[in-house]
Amino acid sequence: MPKTSALAPAVSFSSSERDAVYKAIFTRRDVRDQFLPDPVPDDVVRRLLEAAHNAPSVGFMQPWNFITIRDQAVREKVAQAFGRANAEAAALFPEERQYDYKSLKLEGIRKAPLNICVTCDRERGGKVVLGRTHNASMDLYSTVCAVQNLWLAARAEGIGMGWVSIFHDADLKAILGIPDRIEIVAYLCLGYVDELYERPELEVKGWTRRLPLDALIFEDRWQGGA
Amino acid sequence: MPKTSALAPAVSFSSSERDAVYKAIFTRRDVRDQFLPDPVPDDVVRRLLEAAHNAPSVGFMQPWNFITIRDQAVREKVAQAFGRANAEAAALFPEERQYDYKSLKLEGIRKAPLNICVTCDRERGGKVVLGRTHNASMDLYSTVCAVQNLWLAARAEGIGMGWVSIFHDADLKAILGIPDRIEIVAYLCLGYVDELYERPELEVKGWTRRLPLDALIFEDRWQGGA
Repeated sequence: MPKTSALAPAVSFSSSERDAVYKAIFTRRDVRDQFLPDPVPDDVVRRLLEAAHNAPSVGFMQPWNFITIRDQAVREKVAQAFGRANAEAAALFPEERQYDYKSLKLEGIRKAPLNICVTCDRERGGKVVLGRTHNASMDLYSTVCAVQNLWLAARAEGIGMGWVSIFHDADLKAILGIPDRIEIVAYLCLGYVDELYERPELEVKGWTRRLPLDALIFEDRWQGGA
Repeated sequence: MPKTSALAPAVSFSSSERDAVYKAIFTRRDVRDQFLPDPVPDDVVRRLLEAAHNAPSVGFMQPWNFITIRDQAVREKVAQAFGRANAEAAALFPEERQYDYKSLKLEGIRKAPLNICVTCDRERGGKVVLGRTHNASMDLYSTVCAVQNLWLAARAEGIGMGWVSIFHDADLKAILGIPDRIEIVAYLCLGYVDELYERPELEVKGWTRRLPLDALIFEDRWQGGA
């Protein structure tokens, strides 16, 4: 193995730089309806995907692919697959919640000018991957880190993003020609936004509440109930 | 459901704020050995956990808990659990890679002054969770988003973080008293750093290479081989 250390003084963050990182984290929203029609320029898409590609990955496996989807016919098929799955989803809720559930807009597939499907190639690093020997999900988790990088970068670019998870994977794979062995991790809708919710939309709309952080922190061992 | 829209003009990012977000993303490293012994002050830990708690979560489920671990005796037990699992891991690699594998330092459990175990309570939102009806892993993925928020916030605070994934979960659960029904998503080591690798450590050390991003991007449908 090469001996070069390649260690360098850690680049520090000014307080305004630090605040900018927190600003992205705290003002990021899961956007479903506020997308403007303006196309996202290629160089901006490239920056977003560079951000995703610089996520941590187990064993430096980089198991992700990014399918950028702008074609309206493809998005129409995806929207229909969502619609079928969402009708099934609605029926799973207790009757008293179904009206509220159906009133929520849960995707921006047609409205957002850019969709991105993020996948995980579980065989990319070969059979034995450093760091994945005892937790087989680590490659999926790496791919999720890429999604979150993309989300925060998008926020900083003035672009809203929503993660749509109500699909049968088989439908999406058929529409996008994704091979069996590839796992779909996220289907994302992106576009410029000029308005955002100040708090999470599901909180604003009374679906559920923000939990108090204090109740979620334990010291040195689990301190909640079984 | 309340009718309040609570939509507000999207807060914009100046170019220097945008650059700061990218700086966190591009200079973030998976740190295993560069930790300084200085304790991370409580208010800083709080900011990191606030960042994690502001991650997106499916159906606003917020399924995470954070166990902060400073106790040396606890960290010693965790380090020993890692050691046992890592010996098993090393044996899985082809003989010609075992020397290199064993020469890598893969954790900073004892050296980092702060460890955080991040868990996912898969029952938190009840049986039917909005957005998790068709992908049962969405709560785990939400928890990973919290980890990535924490990682980027840490970077902006001058704190390095490493994700240790070579454990038997049963060992960690026994040491930390984590109930069966709770899933461990990440075990993290954190501490201030004054040096970082300029590129990912596994690339610097010749374990594996950065993939060209262009090869990972497809348009409108999967374009790689099956």
